[in-house]
Amino acid sequence: MRYFLELAYRGSKYHGWQRQPNGLSVQEVLETALTTVFRQPIAIVGSGRTDTGVHAGQQFAHFETDLAIPKNLLRSLNSLIPNDIAVYDCFPVRSDDHARYTATSRYYQYSIIRRKDPFRDGLAYLFTLPLSVDRMNEAASLLLKHTDFESFSKVKTDVKTFNCRIDFAYWTVDTNGDLQFHIKANRFLHGMVRAIVGTLLDVGQNRLGVPDFEQVILALDRRRAGRAAPADGLSLVEVGYPDEVFQHRAR
Amino acid sequence: MRYFLELAYRGSKYHGWQRQPNGLSVQEVLETALTTVFRQPIAIVGSGRTDTGVHAGQQFAHFETDLAIPKNLLRSLNSLIPNDIAVYDCFPVRSDDHARYTATSRYYQYSIIRRKDPFRDGLAYLFTLPLSVDRMNEAASLLLKHTDFESFSKVKTDVKTFNCRIDFAYWTVDTNGDLQFHIKANRFLHGMVRAIVGTLLDVGQNRLGVPDFEQVILALDRRRAGRAAPADGLSLVEVGYPDEVFQHRAR
Repeated sequence: MRYFLELAYRGSKYHGWQRQPNGLSVQEVLETALTTVFRQPIAIVGSGRTDTGVHAGQQFAHFETDLAIPKNLLRSLNSLIPNDIAVYDCFPVRSDDHARYTATSRYYQYSIIRRKDPFRDGLAYLFTLPLSVDRMNEAASLLLKHTDFESFSKVKTDVKTFNCRIDFAYWTVDTNGDLQFHIKANRFLHGMVRAIVGTLLDVGQNRLGVPDFEQVILALDRRRAGRAAPADGLSLVEVGYPDEVFQHRAR
Repeated sequence: MRYFLELAYRGSKYHGWQRQPNGLSVQEVLETALTTVFRQPIAIVGSGRTDTGVHAGQQFAHFETDLAIPKNLLRSLNSLIPNDIAVYDCFPVRSDDHARYTATSRYYQYSIIRRKDPFRDGLAYLFTLPLSVDRMNEAASLLLKHTDFESFSKVKTDVKTFNCRIDFAYWTVDTNGDLQFHIKANRFLHGMVRAIVGTLLDVGQNRLGVPDFEQVILALDRRRAGRAAPADGLSLVEVGYPDEVFQHRAR
């Protein structure tokens, strides 16, 4: 039987989602806890990798077992893992539902604070220089006109194509003047959101024109884009699946 | 010349506000930074002490110096102190304005989360048992009818009276079902908010009746109140002063 887990984590202390030889990952923490509960080795597959320091308000992973699911599984798992990871749900899915390949969309948010905030340390990028949010939104809207995002992809990558369908990409400003970038797509390339945010910050500072931003996209060359924004501000907030994936969910 | 500092801190890593012989306090971090900037020993007086692990969304402190205030004081201070403390303002006050004695009110919030939240770890108390918020609000409103709160004061204390004027005391529930207790008074006794919250949680669980809560207040005996709620959930969010204190504030 295959099951989906719904979870969230603060990524500050982890070497990303994916199991690593040289640092603790969220995946490893969860696999260790599941293996303890089921008393048999359990491996999980996440909806996608998040980099070192990147957070997830929502992430899904699947695993397989022929054992019955203990009634108190969520309580057991949550007591075995640290407070910076939470497991919110576990439900059976069809045998070919795959946390990564069945996912139809990912929604990321990137948070920028304009003054030091002790309560958002590690959860936002402190950026105090003047910014034109209007220009940043004008440039962000150009992302929807394009599909090849090689310019925002890490150079050493083994993907077959650089094509992504962007559903939305825009900035909001809250009452404190803090900024949040919202971007949803069917898929993201490695380092893509942070490279887009870094380049949009160049536009916001007038270091790059709005038409130049479109030229960066068209160049299909990572060297043309800006510096990647720090991991702290980035959070995966929603992963989309076809409704049928959730048909055996209890709530 | 006397100056007020406005600041905020996440208390998780500190032995409270007040300088301690055996652990790092927020006061010590700030005094060290001020002494570095002014190149002369600077001592500060806070609006009040917060316990180990308690946070402040707003805190004020005063200090004195005859030296000119450097133009970039805030930037210098903030770069000298860790990210879990922020200094937001520094402005001159009258020579008898006192961060503690001139303060007319303190407003505290206590946050309770109903499920594990990686992003509020250390900033809220995870409490998953059923609670009646209506009963807790009924009991909280009784606090406004009384002035002597010895029942909620730490036993070893050297205050002259246990009298406090409570301005408001109520619970709110947000869209996630998480709870927040709001309480404002002219002064608070040592450990008072955490003892009140702990006792109200007994009321919310039906372990204590609403009339019994009033009997706890009237007993003037700390042993009658409930266990103190954990420090993590508590935050000083507003300190009130007469308007004249702010007359030389730039913004």
